[in-house]
Amino acid sequence: MSGFWNKRARGLEPYVPGEQPRERRLIKLNTNENPYPPSPKALAAIREAAAADLRLYPDPLCTVLREAVAETYRVKPEQVFPGNGSDEVLAFAFAAFFPSAGEGGVRPVLFPDITYSFYPVYAGLWDIPVRTVPLTGDFSVNAEDYLYPAGGVIFPNPNAPTGRALPLRDILSVAGYQGKAGRVVIVDEAYGAFGGESAVPHIGEFPNLLTVHTLSKAASLAGLRVGFAIGREELIQGLCRLRDSFNSYTLDRLALAGAAAAVSDGAYYHEINRKVIATRERVSGRLRELGFEVIPSAANFIFIRRPRLSGAEIFAALRERGILVRRFDTPRIRDYLRVSMGTDKDMDEFLEFMEAVSKRAPERSAGGAGDEGY
Amino acid sequence: MSGFWNKRARGLEPYVPGEQPRERRLIKLNTNENPYPPSPKALAAIREAAAADLRLYPDPLCTVLREAVAETYRVKPEQVFPGNGSDEVLAFAFAAFFPSAGEGGVRPVLFPDITYSFYPVYAGLWDIPVRTVPLTGDFSVNAEDYLYPAGGVIFPNPNAPTGRALPLRDILSVAGYQGKAGRVVIVDEAYGAFGGESAVPHIGEFPNLLTVHTLSKAASLAGLRVGFAIGREELIQGLCRLRDSFNSYTLDRLALAGAAAAVSDGAYYHEINRKVIATRERVSGRLRELGFEVIPSAANFIFIRRPRLSGAEIFAALRERGILVRRFDTPRIRDYLRVSMGTDKDMDEFLEFMEAVSKRAPERSAGGAGDEGY
Repeated sequence: MSGFWNKRARGLEPYVPGEQPRERRLIKLNTNENPYPPSPKALAAIREAAAADLRLYPDPLCTVLREAVAETYRVKPEQVFPGNGSDEVLAFAFAAFFPSAGEGGVRPVLFPDITYSFYPVYAGLWDIPVRTVPLTGDFSVNAEDYLYPAGGVIFPNPNAPTGRALPLRDILSVAGYQGKAGRVVIVDEAYGAFGGESAVPHIGEFPNLLTVHTLSKAASLAGLRVGFAIGREELIQGLCRLRDSFNSYTLDRLALAGAAAAVSDGAYYHEINRKVIATRERVSGRLRELGFEVIPSAANFIFIRRPRLSGAEIFAALRERGILVRRFDTPRIRDYLRVSMGTDKDMDEFLEFMEAVSKRAPERSAGGAGDEGY
Repeated sequence: MSGFWNKRARGLEPYVPGEQPRERRLIKLNTNENPYPPSPKALAAIREAAAADLRLYPDPLCTVLREAVAETYRVKPEQVFPGNGSDEVLAFAFAAFFPSAGEGGVRPVLFPDITYSFYPVYAGLWDIPVRTVPLTGDFSVNAEDYLYPAGGVIFPNPNAPTGRALPLRDILSVAGYQGKAGRVVIVDEAYGAFGGESAVPHIGEFPNLLTVHTLSKAASLAGLRVGFAIGREELIQGLCRLRDSFNSYTLDRLALAGAAAAVSDGAYYHEINRKVIATRERVSGRLRELGFEVIPSAANFIFIRRPRLSGAEIFAALRERGILVRRFDTPRIRDYLRVSMGTDKDMDEFLEFMEAVSKRAPERSAGGAGDEGY
């Protein structure tokens, strides 16, 4: 703490991202990156943009990217808001749509108790009251829990770190209910390309429905920092007001060019993400054979637990072996590990180690503590 | 306005950046870009980064860039905060250091009445009370006006859009006064490479002094979106708290690599910016011969007025001729134009046109209206 920080700065509890190791050669399964390289067309577009006019400001309207997204997602360019990663898009969405405590008499925003851990951080930044809604016993979102007067709703589909998808009909029922009260529902589709049903085709019916997307996972461009929201024009204009009060040009010329080319190269990404999904199914099956619980995943990661073994211990053993996964030391999930899907070779090394780990587990005992299922 | 926007979104008055024309071939003297290309070393570093690992998240600590800035500016890496353009750095600085109205009983932040027009926008975003301090009659900052109890102080040096530099001793006297009251003084050195005296060597003496820098002007990388702050560790940590509550990775891998290489290539930039300064002096001299008032500039632009001619009319005539400059339609300066320094060829075309313009002006009449000097 410093005397120069204002009340806001003192009160924040910042997000802590997954480790980005610089030194050692690790098998990196901790931040849900794609194991395959980005589209060669995206890289060519970046090289071309670097050779031209980097001395000039980028287009603040991000026209080429908005047009590329509009064509791929069958929406209008005016229904697309690009940002510096989906994290920035989410930061603006919280700021524009969810009511701050200072407005007086506002209801809290709802999101799951187990979800992307940046949501409460944004709420803290903008002073937005929130209430977390427990997932069910099997880590599902129960849509009925969100049919409730609120300041707004946000959840990822598929959810993270569980990987579980929500049925589209549930999302639309929440959007319909909250829309009647004039409240915005944000569906964070960061992992949507790996198995979830997108809500994008329904933005026309629900003027309060905003979907958020990233190029970091499905498009294998985590290093480029590009995300976007899709929604009706008045939601997009609300995001623009926030952006234009914060930073006029959030996307540089290289990111704009690379992202537009990537969004337009669906064929390439379909191919690599089909491989990611196949790896996920293979790894999930093998882990279940080894006695692990594996939450059914529609994402590019899995959320797993080995009954009668501590998550912290498996995490540490993996780290020791040079395999980095993610663990959240919070109630309900501290014995779980989130494992991003690497290449098949990476995952074979991972499985080999997990085989050894599972042999250390005590024999299954009927009704033993810590083995109540998820 | 939309019913889905919260009170914050409804209340904003966003910044409007200078036009970024996409279609016509214009002589673009409106957004203070550098007319010369960026360092070849920066472009090589970008190409190299594009060929490697764009699928992985960038380093959230921006280590290579912080180390490059530290070496060039003779500070420690822990005293450097990089951001997505100096606009983002300023947004975080307002958020972290200047008191919001909600804290109760706070004093307003001070800045000049004629200055970077994003400052009041940031204040609006974070609900920070402000008070503008009039520049003197010749558009100078009078440092004594800032020796006054306040929530904090910000000004650019050189100032924009006037181009006038403040003497370093004035900045240090403001920093000293405000520091005794625990208040932060931000010096926005966006244009510092073109003639101002940097306050960076004094951050050790003034723990409340933050300097802000951009690669958009002097480093000719407006298209890359990189800026940084330099200050004592506790100020930098305050900025990190805000950033990590908003977006963990604000700089992509290409921007990090290109910016680090640019910051380290001082020799190249010294050369191109020497040319920009020479052009500025030549153009200023010629315009004075033509009867223009030219505020003495230490920046890469000039702020000019032709007595007895309307700024709006000259602006429109230039636009018609394919020459884009910037005009602010606000009290005191609506007859002035801000003209970025282009190549010598660009400026010859500009001067040729201004010669014709000045012939249209009515003859000087003793004590004529609109001719009271600046």
